[in-house]
Amino acid sequence: MTRTFDLAVIGATGSVGETLVQLLEEREFPVANLHLVASGESAGRSLSYKGKNLRVRDLETFDFASVRLVFFAAGRKVTHKYAAQAAAAGCAVIDLASGLPAAQAPRVIPEVNPVVLASLTACLAVSSRGREGVSELARQTAELLNGRAFEPQLFDRQMAFNLLAQVEQTDSAGHAALERQIAGELKELLALPDLQVAVTCIQVPVFFGDSLNVSVQTESAIDLTQVYAALDAAPALELVQMDDYPTAVGDAVGQDVVYVGRVRAGLADPAELNLWIASDNVRKGAALNAVQLAELLIKHYL
Amino acid sequence: MTRTFDLAVIGATGSVGETLVQLLEEREFPVANLHLVASGESAGRSLSYKGKNLRVRDLETFDFASVRLVFFAAGRKVTHKYAAQAAAAGCAVIDLASGLPAAQAPRVIPEVNPVVLASLTACLAVSSRGREGVSELARQTAELLNGRAFEPQLFDRQMAFNLLAQVEQTDSAGHAALERQIAGELKELLALPDLQVAVTCIQVPVFFGDSLNVSVQTESAIDLTQVYAALDAAPALELVQMDDYPTAVGDAVGQDVVYVGRVRAGLADPAELNLWIASDNVRKGAALNAVQLAELLIKHYL
Repeated sequence: MTRTFDLAVIGATGSVGETLVQLLEEREFPVANLHLVASGESAGRSLSYKGKNLRVRDLETFDFASVRLVFFAAGRKVTHKYAAQAAAAGCAVIDLASGLPAAQAPRVIPEVNPVVLASLTACLAVSSRGREGVSELARQTAELLNGRAFEPQLFDRQMAFNLLAQVEQTDSAGHAALERQIAGELKELLALPDLQVAVTCIQVPVFFGDSLNVSVQTESAIDLTQVYAALDAAPALELVQMDDYPTAVGDAVGQDVVYVGRVRAGLADPAELNLWIASDNVRKGAALNAVQLAELLIKHYL
Repeated sequence: MTRTFDLAVIGATGSVGETLVQLLEEREFPVANLHLVASGESAGRSLSYKGKNLRVRDLETFDFASVRLVFFAAGRKVTHKYAAQAAAAGCAVIDLASGLPAAQAPRVIPEVNPVVLASLTACLAVSSRGREGVSELARQTAELLNGRAFEPQLFDRQMAFNLLAQVEQTDSAGHAALERQIAGELKELLALPDLQVAVTCIQVPVFFGDSLNVSVQTESAIDLTQVYAALDAAPALELVQMDDYPTAVGDAVGQDVVYVGRVRAGLADPAELNLWIASDNVRKGAALNAVQLAELLIKHYL
């Protein structure tokens, strides 16, 4: 007999929340009662789960004590406001906002050759801003192709056929919170607290799928054969050979695996490793990571 | 009395060639006779220069001995085939294909603090592939927005709403020729032959304007005040302050200046400098560089 759990999804009507509910169903997550929760106007709508229509509850009046496990797929502000409440009610909390692209970078560098420096350009799809991001890019693109003027909404300027050098307001030193967060996660992931990481997050005119350009420096020459073997053997990771390359749209979107390609040493430096990572930011980047984390949680802790 | 020169523009009907002709007119370049030259079907067309319509000549039968200065705005293959012919005929040759984004990176690092490592992600607009690139992105975008299937042409896969991890076939070590070239130019520009440069060129769904994400490591801590002052004082360069950032479409396109923003130290490392560069790849990246080079040439050598 499998134990089952009462759980809640906060932000259930967003694109990440909806993918999460779909994954819970696909992976036959041991759900007793599923509570779909959202704030404001979205409350009251219905969503499908295992052939049934579930009514979306209002976050403001939701009783966290009625569930054991809470997924927050709701953006930082809402999460910040309600996660403590959920934890105080005794819930295990899984925050999908932390399921960031950097956390998906595979650990490919052998421990005998520590990474000393990493440089990342993270190209984020507009769906990182939820459904509004997707519809705003579509709207701007259509207006432009039809030669009509438009006022940018959501993004602070033209997003269609353009790259935005930052994804949010930066702090006084010029760094975005997300850039700090990715650097922190990468250090944690590689267990290298003193690692120097340069991170730039940019917003690109792509609907779904994040891409990462990564360059790392290690202490001594990298054995590429070893790197290829490690990448090839890694689960949930698809290595794309040199005569090809992965893209967000063509490969990663809709997939649970992360695609890695353009794996190569430095132009002149054998201690440098470069790679390109493409993943589905909604499914893999947040929703799948959250479900996998929950699966681990219920196996070991709940 | 100003000396004037007979000159030829090879590839005059392409977007770079056309911008070049426009710049020659705008900057009152000392032209005696201007010969517009193109290959194949483009020969026979007419282009406007100083209010006159000039007929485009056929490259195959063009007599290089009739001019003193030749601009090649024609792509690598054609340039490779005809540049030697032009040089043999005694012409000064200016190759616009070498006017690459990296060469626009300003020299901002004081010489007392040499750069030891640089990492670049160069995001190239589709106009780097000429007019065909522009029309292919427009076509793919329109088809997608109308929900119609399409076969990618020119690019090897879907370019609309997607990022391509490489801009051309790579060599056996995984590097593109353009990546090697940019690294080489950067070393030359900074006069640092032993500089380690990691370069990744990607193709982005932007019509005009290249963007570069750059991270450099120097030997010791960087004085940001000094960097700001140097950038602010540099001609042909516009420094965008921290509460804003430059974009290819909004700022750089149609401008002769290169925009630099997001200038910041490393997250933890004061010897790291990060910046974002946006420039008009057609006008500044190739055409303007070529005209400025020609102006220097005629001043000192011709």
